[in-house]
Amino acid sequence: MKMENPTPIQWQFSERAQQLQSSVIREILKVTVRPEVISFAGGLPSPETFPVERMRAAFDTVLSKQGKVALQYGPTDGYGPLREWIADSLSTDGAKIVPEQVLMVSGSQQGLDLLAKVLVDEGSKVLVETPSYLGALQAFSVYRPEFVSVPTDDHGLIPEQLGSVAQGARLLYALPNFQNPTGRSLSVERRAALVETCARLGLPLIEDDPYGALSYRGEPLPKMLTMNPNGVIYMGSFSKVLTPGIRLGYVVAPVPLIRKLEQAKQAADLHTAQLTQMVVHEVVKDGFLKEHIPTIRKLYSDQCQAMLGALTEFFPSSVTWTTPEGGMFIWVTLPKHIDSMKLLDEAIAQNVAFVPGAPFYANAAEKNTLRLSFVTVPPAKIREGVEKLGKLIKSKL
Amino acid sequence: MKMENPTPIQWQFSERAQQLQSSVIREILKVTVRPEVISFAGGLPSPETFPVERMRAAFDTVLSKQGKVALQYGPTDGYGPLREWIADSLSTDGAKIVPEQVLMVSGSQQGLDLLAKVLVDEGSKVLVETPSYLGALQAFSVYRPEFVSVPTDDHGLIPEQLGSVAQGARLLYALPNFQNPTGRSLSVERRAALVETCARLGLPLIEDDPYGALSYRGEPLPKMLTMNPNGVIYMGSFSKVLTPGIRLGYVVAPVPLIRKLEQAKQAADLHTAQLTQMVVHEVVKDGFLKEHIPTIRKLYSDQCQAMLGALTEFFPSSVTWTTPEGGMFIWVTLPKHIDSMKLLDEAIAQNVAFVPGAPFYANAAEKNTLRLSFVTVPPAKIREGVEKLGKLIKSKL
Repeated sequence: MKMENPTPIQWQFSERAQQLQSSVIREILKVTVRPEVISFAGGLPSPETFPVERMRAAFDTVLSKQGKVALQYGPTDGYGPLREWIADSLSTDGAKIVPEQVLMVSGSQQGLDLLAKVLVDEGSKVLVETPSYLGALQAFSVYRPEFVSVPTDDHGLIPEQLGSVAQGARLLYALPNFQNPTGRSLSVERRAALVETCARLGLPLIEDDPYGALSYRGEPLPKMLTMNPNGVIYMGSFSKVLTPGIRLGYVVAPVPLIRKLEQAKQAADLHTAQLTQMVVHEVVKDGFLKEHIPTIRKLYSDQCQAMLGALTEFFPSSVTWTTPEGGMFIWVTLPKHIDSMKLLDEAIAQNVAFVPGAPFYANAAEKNTLRLSFVTVPPAKIREGVEKLGKLIKSKL
Repeated sequence: MKMENPTPIQWQFSERAQQLQSSVIREILKVTVRPEVISFAGGLPSPETFPVERMRAAFDTVLSKQGKVALQYGPTDGYGPLREWIADSLSTDGAKIVPEQVLMVSGSQQGLDLLAKVLVDEGSKVLVETPSYLGALQAFSVYRPEFVSVPTDDHGLIPEQLGSVAQGARLLYALPNFQNPTGRSLSVERRAALVETCARLGLPLIEDDPYGALSYRGEPLPKMLTMNPNGVIYMGSFSKVLTPGIRLGYVVAPVPLIRKLEQAKQAADLHTAQLTQMVVHEVVKDGFLKEHIPTIRKLYSDQCQAMLGALTEFFPSSVTWTTPEGGMFIWVTLPKHIDSMKLLDEAIAQNVAFVPGAPFYANAAEKNTLRLSFVTVPPAKIREGVEKLGKLIKSKL
């Protein structure tokens, strides 16, 4: 029945698809799977932190007790008890979050896609931090916005700089805790100022918070969501506190927006796996994260200290870096004349990898920056990798 | 820290979001969860067919043996061994499919979303069957195409009718096996003619095949993919042969299109759950589906016969219906003056539900049609429900 020599199709891609590109990070990750490479490139959490046995037991319980429900199609907005658990865990004395404000998504990345799908037209102004999370820029780009980079300093985004650029913008995207890529956090005062400014401007504020729980010292700073539940869109994820391979995140927003996002999700993938949601609920419902998260904090904090020590020891004084108080990343600024993209080729030849900073800028990239992740590399290897990188940088001075 | 009386945001939705609507089916399903309702409305497979114990054992095996890999981020294109299995299972003597042509997606619905995202601009002509699968219309609608309905008859889509409307179209979407909603299948001759016509026109042909394996008699008809692997985009799913709640499907297409879809998927949700893919591979790799699928065919065939018998017994002679040779649906055509949407309200009042036909038409709906699913209702209840519906219809004559 096969056709003889059919003419191959000339694919005509949509305008939005023509500009799609593969993430630089994922391309780099393909290179760095060689076991001899010390990779500071990944944004992956450490598999040492995955509660494998706990997950195995939960799959067993859910499938044994409620297998036919767990394996059937489920509601688009998500598994009710898990949405309740999330709403409860985000509620504070002053700000009550209800389950109707929670939409379960197939990882935070899907939340970004759905938000842009629903809020962004071609040419819409979208405000992002300088630099910003690459995956968000990628998700938003599909809908062809005009990106506006809001200035930042060591304390994160500068709310005072917002007024002049926010006119007519559709959203502001911020990552206030241990930001990807810089590791910086937004101070409490700035959070309050940002929330107030956005409310005054009628500007939807997206608070993306995958790393918030990973604070090395004491309790995390208050969420912007709790400062104005009617104006802030909060994004959470189980990827960094449980495991990323199950693809489970959530968007918390005012109900009119959730209803619209739910319609978009229905068209995009009907719903997120019911089984996974039931299993995660089974794992978290009795307070497991309260015991588990401190073990992740400890591991990451120790490895962060190892990297900060090695940077001080091996990097020349003309290089600066951030000192994160949580999360997974350190941001390095090289002397102006060093292009980190070019440096990467030489580093990989010496079996060390990192992510160049340029792709994290929506506009006017600072090419002398790079991102280091310390969470999947043991301290001795961190030292070895940073030493190699330090020598390489010194050879460029 | 909570703001005092912030002004609620006036949400400005994107143009594409303004036209988004919730699926009629999912709205109806919400009404029909009452246990006293005999529902022929669902598109859900029967939970009796879910191999719960087999799935439980496979989760146990994968998490015990490869837990840390299964719970980590994975590649965007999918889990290699499963892509290989799919490529092998689709290959025929004449047409070899390679794993590079396979993209794993979070259920077929995501395949539809990604295909439209990558192939459809606003106003692009998109060809669909009359009637067509509602979920596809919903997924494509987001990208605001101009739908063109291609005429069909009892043997499915009519290839000769294509030439006059296909000029400049971006894709043709067809569901050749036991179509949703009609239960009709495209004959072998028409498959060949359709593949040839599309190749001649340079028109991408989407072959959506969730029900293909559910043939009641003998082997399924040849796939259009195998007639022209360079011009056909094939969509498969584990939802109807294994379980839908895990959300796992795949797109098979020429490599240049797969690469573009992969970029779109990366922006949309990074990748489909690695754990789920490993578990499904564990379940299917040793031929489990060869034993399992016949049990589904038998169940659905018996219930289909029960429904066809009841229709003959209780429906008036002015009503006609399709006689499917596989799959999950029967399509009913009422006398012209009966609007099935209005009939539904009365049916629900009598605790019987179905899906009105109108939403399945991209243009010019035939309001006197409806879809019946027989797979989740036992034969005695099928008889009871059809009898009630028959009386209701007779009361309108």
